[in-house]
Amino acid sequence: MGRVVVEVMPKPEILDPQGKAVVGALPRLGFTQFTSVRQGKRFELEVEGDVTPEVLAAAQAAAETLLSNPIIEDVVRVADVEADAAGTITSAGLA
Amino acid sequence: MGRVVVEVMPKPEILDPQGKAVVGALPRLGFTQFTSVRQGKRFELEVEGDVTPEVLAAAQAAAETLLSNPIIEDVVRVADVEADAAGTITSAGLA
Repeated sequence: MGRVVVEVMPKPEILDPQGKAVVGALPRLGFTQFTSVRQGKRFELEVEGDVTPEVLAAAQAAAETLLSNPIIEDVVRVADVEADAAGTITSAGLA
Repeated sequence: MGRVVVEVMPKPEILDPQGKAVVGALPRLGFTQFTSVRQGKRFELEVEGDVTPEVLAAAQAAAETLLSNPIIEDVVRVADVEADAAGTITSAGLA
């Protein structure tokens, strides 16, 4: 069973009230190092079998037609979820 | 200027009505290969300067306290956004 990750973010010129709310709340919790926050969406799409180039192409097409609104959002990532492992930091990894 | 990506997904045992809606809509658009969809959130946090281990640790702490609800969500990824480049597939890359 394979899994594809699709990630969608609001375009830079689009106002992002959720991100603004988060960046306003962070300093109140002691996180003063972050100057800007944007909030988007992450989808995990499961397929039977492996994640082939055809599956990735279908995920890209779905990302651009159903999972994002191309007027206000950009598809920033379409990837086999296995590719995440290297970049992931777990709580244990940081301890 | 550095950027940290934080990704949050609903826990597997939590019902995800947005994902259910997407998985119901995909076959109507001709995408029949996807058997399950989950929808979560992607945050991009900007910092002045580089993404140091201290910045990643702060992002992890913010992810667990403000950006996710630990009762119903898991923090699945905290990473320097540069790490995304390798796994990203653009439309051009698939053409």
